Amino acid sequence: MKELNEAIRKWGKAIGKDVVKVDMFLNHRIDTALIFRMGEELADRFASARPDLILTVEASGIALALACARALGNIPVVFAKKGSTVVQNEEMVTSKVYSFTHKTENTIRVDRRYLPKGSRVLIVDDFLADGQAVRGMTDLCVQAGCTVCGVGIGIEKGFQSGGDTLRRQGTDLYSLAIVDHIDEKGNICLREA
Amino acid sequence: MKELNEAIRKWGKAIGKDVVKVDMFLNHRIDTALIFRMGEELADRFASARPDLILTVEASGIALALACARALGNIPVVFAKKGSTVVQNEEMVTSKVYSFTHKTENTIRVDRRYLPKGSRVLIVDDFLADGQAVRGMTDLCVQAGCTVCGVGIGIEKGFQSGGDTLRRQGTDLYSLAIVDHIDEKGNICLREA
Repeated sequence: MKELNEAIRKWGKAIGKDVVKVDMFLNHRIDTALIFRMGEELADRFASARPDLILTVEASGIALALACARALGNIPVVFAKKGSTVVQNEEMVTSKVYSFTHKTENTIRVDRRYLPKGSRVLIVDDFLADGQAVRGMTDLCVQAGCTVCGVGIGIEKGFQSGGDTLRRQGTDLYSLAIVDHIDEKGNICLREA
Repeated sequence: MKELNEAIRKWGKAIGKDVVKVDMFLNHRIDTALIFRMGEELADRFASARPDLILTVEASGIALALACARALGNIPVVFAKKGSTVVQNEEMVTSKVYSFTHKTENTIRVDRRYLPKGSRVLIVDDFLADGQAVRGMTDLCVQAGCTVCGVGIGIEKGFQSGGDTLRRQGTDLYSLAIVDHIDEKGNICLREA
């Protein structure tokens, strides 16, 4: 997506060889016009998959999920909550998610009532790296008896394995921007569509 | 706000004498149409205060903040991040926030670059109870040299002291719904406008 690629080029910062910092417009300060354009783009791509709801994970996935839900005619957004402990509770579906970035294991959880059995779920997140969060959310959907009808991502780190693995598994995955690699000089190199 | 009062009556659940659970439409599952109506209502109320940006705190404040920012002509949203430890870092402004609900102390932080000195800041949050989060965000604004031009809230717990204290201090506070009390039978009783 052109505007997103431009924002990454203008504001994105590489840290080392694998961290892409986009605090300026995506996950600390939000560029409101841009996030709604991103949401519209995901909505265009996934409207034909007829999602009943969007599932994301707190906190930085919420803005893109809401913008996309708005463009899909105000379908609901459900955000999985994160915690360090497993809440054993029949009302909840839970899944473990390991974050390679933060070197921590979190449990994500959703109240079953908000993933009604048989729902078509569009998973949305701001970032895709190793794919653990998407796998965790997919696991929640399976436990709740829902179908994942697509996965929409803001920025995919193409040099990590998450995207390719999901595509090989047949997931209908679409990323608005893909970072191909960070070069020797610390430039963020984008994969052009 | 009529639609919000109706949603609270229909979906809200009282737990004990002081917890108002609105997971169904506000802070776990989001009713997209309703959150945008709430954002528009806050925008109408605060447009004349000419905010440059909205400040909220992760995670459940983000949706209402974004909806309000959209209605205010796409001004940026900045969300303060929460952590249990104080990051001593000159790039950050930080403040301690005690949560009476969770009986925990968190530190909230914002990168100084996203609160440019002299900015007019509208603070938005989904809930107001004892007012600690708003006080923490106000503290961040003061440290960054910004002016708080208003505080917009989804649901105020009128039986806790936060709202009254802020009003006495001269804060321009507006809550879309105010829960007056939870009665003996566990009904959520709203204060009518």
